[in-house]
Amino acid sequence: MNKNNIGIKQLISLTEEDMEKVNSLIIQKTMSNTEMIPKISQYLISSGGKRLRPMLTIASSRLCNCDNEHYITLAASVEFMHTATLLHDDVVDDSRMRRGKISARMLWGNEASVLVGDYLLGEAFKMMVNARSLDALEVLSNAAAIIAEGEVMQLVYSNQLLLTKEQYFKIIDHKTAKLFSAAAEIGAIISNAPKEYAEQLRDFGEFLGIAFQLTDDALDYSSDSSDIGKDLGDDFYEGKITYPIIVAIEKAEAEERTKWEKLMQKKQRDENDFQFARNMLVTSGAIKETLIEAEKYAHKAIKCLDCFHDNDIKKAMIDGAHFSYNRDI
Amino acid sequence: MNKNNIGIKQLISLTEEDMEKVNSLIIQKTMSNTEMIPKISQYLISSGGKRLRPMLTIASSRLCNCDNEHYITLAASVEFMHTATLLHDDVVDDSRMRRGKISARMLWGNEASVLVGDYLLGEAFKMMVNARSLDALEVLSNAAAIIAEGEVMQLVYSNQLLLTKEQYFKIIDHKTAKLFSAAAEIGAIISNAPKEYAEQLRDFGEFLGIAFQLTDDALDYSSDSSDIGKDLGDDFYEGKITYPIIVAIEKAEAEERTKWEKLMQKKQRDENDFQFARNMLVTSGAIKETLIEAEKYAHKAIKCLDCFHDNDIKKAMIDGAHFSYNRDI
Repeated sequence: MNKNNIGIKQLISLTEEDMEKVNSLIIQKTMSNTEMIPKISQYLISSGGKRLRPMLTIASSRLCNCDNEHYITLAASVEFMHTATLLHDDVVDDSRMRRGKISARMLWGNEASVLVGDYLLGEAFKMMVNARSLDALEVLSNAAAIIAEGEVMQLVYSNQLLLTKEQYFKIIDHKTAKLFSAAAEIGAIISNAPKEYAEQLRDFGEFLGIAFQLTDDALDYSSDSSDIGKDLGDDFYEGKITYPIIVAIEKAEAEERTKWEKLMQKKQRDENDFQFARNMLVTSGAIKETLIEAEKYAHKAIKCLDCFHDNDIKKAMIDGAHFSYNRDI
Repeated sequence: MNKNNIGIKQLISLTEEDMEKVNSLIIQKTMSNTEMIPKISQYLISSGGKRLRPMLTIASSRLCNCDNEHYITLAASVEFMHTATLLHDDVVDDSRMRRGKISARMLWGNEASVLVGDYLLGEAFKMMVNARSLDALEVLSNAAAIIAEGEVMQLVYSNQLLLTKEQYFKIIDHKTAKLFSAAAEIGAIISNAPKEYAEQLRDFGEFLGIAFQLTDDALDYSSDSSDIGKDLGDDFYEGKITYPIIVAIEKAEAEERTKWEKLMQKKQRDENDFQFARNMLVTSGAIKETLIEAEKYAHKAIKCLDCFHDNDIKKAMIDGAHFSYNRDI
């Protein structure tokens, strides 16, 4: 597969000016006299995430010819929601690293990560209110509850080896795709676009989110980039049952299945375990199958854009969908 | 001081019918197919809190002759916000007990407590959106951020013995009084009451919240009730510098001050330490002074009701303000 990381360049370029406004707003809204709040927030926010979610809100608003500036505020609120989730996630997963840096909780403790996450969530809602759209607020508050529900599901299933594909998709739909979906939908809502457009963009975001998550799952075992934004094997070391493992176990004979069980039930997994798992996933074709599944979802996403006229932003969104599965970062 | 716990009876009785609606809504909104969510939420919600905050929203709405049912939804959302805060608080404070029961985090773990707290916060915002008032949403989202900011402040100051009264009031104003204040203010907002009424009720809630917190601080050392809702000495064992200790240290000679320093800097404090501290707080008059301060704030709260006509609900709110400092539960 041709790793075409320039696929997202056009989207970045077209949203650049707006993203600068979003970034200023983000910095401004993390300010607080309680020094620890801007310190932790900015540490994480400036740690080089791709900022796909706010970019999606901007792209969606532009596609719907938005004639007000509220989409900037909503885009920033989406990034705040995402950052709050990351802070809490790292506490729940005991993560030592995030985006290639030491995680906030390792530097400032779990307590501060929980509370600063809460603060960012509060600020996210304040920004949403500033955008004065009850419909956008409905979509985003719904997303907030569903994301948390997905995280709880993941926790409940965390020590269960035989996660079905159905359970897996339910989790990622909640914990990842929902925010992509909301990010895209509110762009249409704040532009006062027809309901059908909002629905299509909602689905575009959802399918795109699933494609991204599937690819992330594959990259955890297969990336050769140092810039993946997390460490190779993060999911594996945390004992997370992701799509490639589900596929590999499905294909496995009894003996190999036992190996997987032993591997994932170990209290701690080491570098040798990782290389072994990685090898099994590659040779069984599970990585490839995961990326093919991601590509399917990307195509479903692209199909949702059919109702929109062809233009630069639509083309960049289509490229972005191809990028979702065709990347090594 | 006459411990007149019947002081809140009238308020409970006048809001009883509405509180039943709030309670049904709460149960309904904790439902989720992810079993752990209703389990943890209902464990905490049904553990016998006084539900003062939703009661305040109801009282406030009734005082402003609210002619719609949205105040029920807002009252439930306030209780959800509060419950989310308690779940996260217990994680941050490593609390073993809450309201006289084993804390949720001891039963289901820190991870689940963080995530279910997030879920309840999301659901709280969904309910607020259902009430369709951007002004109420503004007040409540602002409160959410400020509460978290107060918690971060408290964390930052947590190992600092010489907390000033100013710092103390700043913390409790953020982490406790703000939600009381928002709970009261939104009652006026959702009733479309004049702005002045909303402002007076906002201040009423704020002063009342401070009075409650000061009294809670005192009761941690002086309650003789088994029904205080938390264990005697909780704050002390957690090493929390509360108002009575600040007063005692302020009054102390050098020798006694050193004793306090040693006591609060210990890694763990035992029953003997607690009896010693309690004795110092009672004999120095620090407990009494704390309750006098609480009473002052209760009177400030009552003053805010001057602009309203005398009626049953106003009288019950005044009684509630007296209850804030005059109770042993």
